[in-house]
Amino acid sequence: MNGSRPTVHPVEAPPLTDGPLNGPRMRMKNVQGMPGTHGGLTLRLLQFVFGLVSLCVMATTSHFRTFTAFCYLVIAVSLQISWSLSLAIVDAYALLVRRSLRKRAIVRLFAIGDGITSTLIFAAASASAGITVLVGNDLNRCSVNPCARFETATAMAFISWFAMTPSFLMNFWALASQ
Amino acid sequence: MNGSRPTVHPVEAPPLTDGPLNGPRMRMKNVQGMPGTHGGLTLRLLQFVFGLVSLCVMATTSHFRTFTAFCYLVIAVSLQISWSLSLAIVDAYALLVRRSLRKRAIVRLFAIGDGITSTLIFAAASASAGITVLVGNDLNRCSVNPCARFETATAMAFISWFAMTPSFLMNFWALASQ
Repeated sequence: MNGSRPTVHPVEAPPLTDGPLNGPRMRMKNVQGMPGTHGGLTLRLLQFVFGLVSLCVMATTSHFRTFTAFCYLVIAVSLQISWSLSLAIVDAYALLVRRSLRKRAIVRLFAIGDGITSTLIFAAASASAGITVLVGNDLNRCSVNPCARFETATAMAFISWFAMTPSFLMNFWALASQ
Repeated sequence: MNGSRPTVHPVEAPPLTDGPLNGPRMRMKNVQGMPGTHGGLTLRLLQFVFGLVSLCVMATTSHFRTFTAFCYLVIAVSLQISWSLSLAIVDAYALLVRRSLRKRAIVRLFAIGDGITSTLIFAAASASAGITVLVGNDLNRCSVNPCARFETATAMAFISWFAMTPSFLMNFWALASQ
């Protein structure tokens, strides 16, 4: 076969054309952080843990009900940890039974869900940060408000968002490159 | 040359292989909203106009300097309108001279810039929304604060972010599908 190929196909264009175009697809399958990988499961667990810490810290603060932004943070983080825990279970199941989660419908669902939850958690964290800075710095009311708890809950929500962003970007990238 | 080609390349594999793989690229070139299209220019102008209105409304409010979140909104919106205006000029130039902006380096720059500015403007709008709700609803201090102006500036910043999101998503999609 190799001996006859130069006569029939003197130019090696087809293999060279296929290589770079199929390269990203092959590469994306092995990228850690995608659904169904150990990296993806780690990201989901990080999102869940930091979200849970944020929720616990904020919900155990007696003052949070007087601030609408903090109530919104509690709701957004509750939604986000439910989503992250569900996806962590799916990832763990896919790893255990060695099933791929690279189907277009699944990737689209994950990308949309990650986009919505990361937007909600980022909005809630930013609003809480605005209130925390207002109460702590602008008004100097830390004597009557648990500023340290507000700051901790906000920081944990931001870290949870930081862990959620790679999941969203990777799913969106996979969706576009399919 | 054409007469000798079937003898040298009897199989028409290269054109068939190129077709489906290059399909998404051809399709993405015509999507309105991408850089260098009328839709893209419209999105940039919308981002600029709503950002400018938000900046003007907030900057002409005497009280905004007492709130850190509102100062951050002014800085973030200033950055965003500079970026949007620059990209609008680039889009208009590309449309006038009929040049394509679909080079990988340009798309990557646009995607990163859009990602950073949209994140900043969304954080600023969310923080301002948190403060506006706190001042207007939770504390009922609208008698001593221009709540209507705060709400208008925040709403305009959110609309500017809404116009920025499609630009970011389309550039990111184009980057991934290249």
